[in-house]
Amino acid sequence: MPNSEVQIPRIAVDAMGGDYGPSLVVPSAVKAARDGIGIVLVGDEDVIKEELARLDISGLDVTVVPASQVVEMDDKPSDALRRKKDSSIQVACRYVKDGKADGVVSAGNSGASVACGIFVLGRIKGVLRPALAGIMPTEKDPVVLIDVGANVDSKPLHLFQFGLMADVLARDVLGMKDPSIGLLSIGEEEGKGNAMVREAYDLLRESQLKFIGNVEGRDIFTGDVDVVVCDGFVGNVALKLSEGLAQSMGRILKEELKSSWLSKLGTLLSLRAFKRFRRVVDYAEYGGAPLLGLKGIVVVCHGKSNELAIVNAIKVAATSVRNKMHEHLAEGLAAHKGLSGKTGKTTKSAA
Amino acid sequence: MPNSEVQIPRIAVDAMGGDYGPSLVVPSAVKAARDGIGIVLVGDEDVIKEELARLDISGLDVTVVPASQVVEMDDKPSDALRRKKDSSIQVACRYVKDGKADGVVSAGNSGASVACGIFVLGRIKGVLRPALAGIMPTEKDPVVLIDVGANVDSKPLHLFQFGLMADVLARDVLGMKDPSIGLLSIGEEEGKGNAMVREAYDLLRESQLKFIGNVEGRDIFTGDVDVVVCDGFVGNVALKLSEGLAQSMGRILKEELKSSWLSKLGTLLSLRAFKRFRRVVDYAEYGGAPLLGLKGIVVVCHGKSNELAIVNAIKVAATSVRNKMHEHLAEGLAAHKGLSGKTGKTTKSAA
Repeated sequence: MPNSEVQIPRIAVDAMGGDYGPSLVVPSAVKAARDGIGIVLVGDEDVIKEELARLDISGLDVTVVPASQVVEMDDKPSDALRRKKDSSIQVACRYVKDGKADGVVSAGNSGASVACGIFVLGRIKGVLRPALAGIMPTEKDPVVLIDVGANVDSKPLHLFQFGLMADVLARDVLGMKDPSIGLLSIGEEEGKGNAMVREAYDLLRESQLKFIGNVEGRDIFTGDVDVVVCDGFVGNVALKLSEGLAQSMGRILKEELKSSWLSKLGTLLSLRAFKRFRRVVDYAEYGGAPLLGLKGIVVVCHGKSNELAIVNAIKVAATSVRNKMHEHLAEGLAAHKGLSGKTGKTTKSAA
Repeated sequence: MPNSEVQIPRIAVDAMGGDYGPSLVVPSAVKAARDGIGIVLVGDEDVIKEELARLDISGLDVTVVPASQVVEMDDKPSDALRRKKDSSIQVACRYVKDGKADGVVSAGNSGASVACGIFVLGRIKGVLRPALAGIMPTEKDPVVLIDVGANVDSKPLHLFQFGLMADVLARDVLGMKDPSIGLLSIGEEEGKGNAMVREAYDLLRESQLKFIGNVEGRDIFTGDVDVVVCDGFVGNVALKLSEGLAQSMGRILKEELKSSWLSKLGTLLSLRAFKRFRRVVDYAEYGGAPLLGLKGIVVVCHGKSNELAIVNAIKVAATSVRNKMHEHLAEGLAAHKGLSGKTGKTTKSAA
């Protein structure tokens, strides 16, 4: 893939991560390599090579980097950082830090991936708190929900920066021209919400972003807003609730449709429509949540990620590199240097 | 309906509330009266009598109480309180305060209903913050989500009391024997969450409630937990998100099913199953959100409430009265008097 402007993106993939481990991650990464992405598989060398032996990787840019440890799903992030320095996720992050790869993708322990990303790669100058950007399907274009869990107890200026970073992501990765930014609250009118949200409102309104004001929970999935900004506690609850509700609704519909011969026949006739319905509410569509604000790309995938999710997460990482998202993030931050809010003080909720 | 133990519950219904106003509320209330509930219709006397003239109310306990003002949907709660003292919602609340009715049901401006309820009726002794309990359908039994918007910036002891009050609601209104109480957080393990949640965890663990620990957004709709406790900001986002996502999924499915002749035919055959699917995700099933902690029952309905929602909200109010929920609330609070938490201080998030 000749490209005079930028190099071929090279993504370090945590081969040991995810509920299905190397047997799913390795073939998924190889599939992404076929799309012209350089792949570095990090983890147990023997296991990875065994998986690779089953695949045709001739002509592909696929390399293996050994790591002797694995972060388990129930490891505490702090323990993963200190006691598992040779874990696949930490080695992958160092590989990016050392300039040997451009980004990391992991479906392993999310907390550990966030912690390793922050401590190994470090923050872009000016970023107060890196944030996880969930990309979710809606009735129209996808929506970016930020933060979905990297931070709790955020301050107003943090929320403002989340909006700033998601604006860049929406442009560079989702190809949006002038993304609209909404602030998640419990009423559309200015002044609605908790103390944190009311202060963040003022910061966003003063910015150069296309801020459309408060949005509510019911606005997330209509597709009428491109970026929804919130604290990581609220965003994580919202993300998991959406996932759970979509699954519950799918199960209820399935049960009901199986309940009579007539509806079973009807279902057979409507099968294609159901498949498309499932795809619309399928989180695999965008693969993973980019962790924004670091000196390097990190994309955190769901533990239950399937092949499509891993492939798409790698593509999101590669697109971020190709479109120089990092330079644009730094530019966006620089352009809003004057907006410092009241972050030195506590929020009003603190009083 | 002879009943030697308790009187026939008498519910004051805000006849002017809701997007459809008296033309929907009046016939809905009359329908509830047919189930042996005393109904007091509060609002514009002429309009209400005009609606009643179209209905057969012979033998029913239906009375009209005039109120000259109406709280509009965009009125601020504080304005509604001070400037509309003769509004239907405020007159209805006073009617309960004066002992002439046992509870209030309104589909009008939610913020105003909450404010009028709190200021006119007053709190039960010991209740720090009244809270709105959303009752939502799940794959199994309904779940109580508390608080869904009466409070923002809650403190740990508030959350604890929300759990206590919802426990009584689940027993007295939903007929649950020993409801399980979960604390909404971003990870199941103890210690996960923000500062407020971590402190509330300790209070709930020390209580006599059946506390099962942290639950996540994805656990709300499985039906595996009976009560989910959270701050009103988070709960309001969750409630509206669930409503919006369910509607979006319904619209997507509808579009897809209309997209070919084959699936249109299939849909016809599966129609009964779809109707049942819709009912499962229909908020009208439980009608409204009881506002817990007041000296009197207040049930706040969705502005878009249909007849079923209004009827069910009135039934929820009547059941609360019949089962003496108020006495049980006071008993529950008294039994946990020792648990005062650190509410005198600010939460850690405040530091």
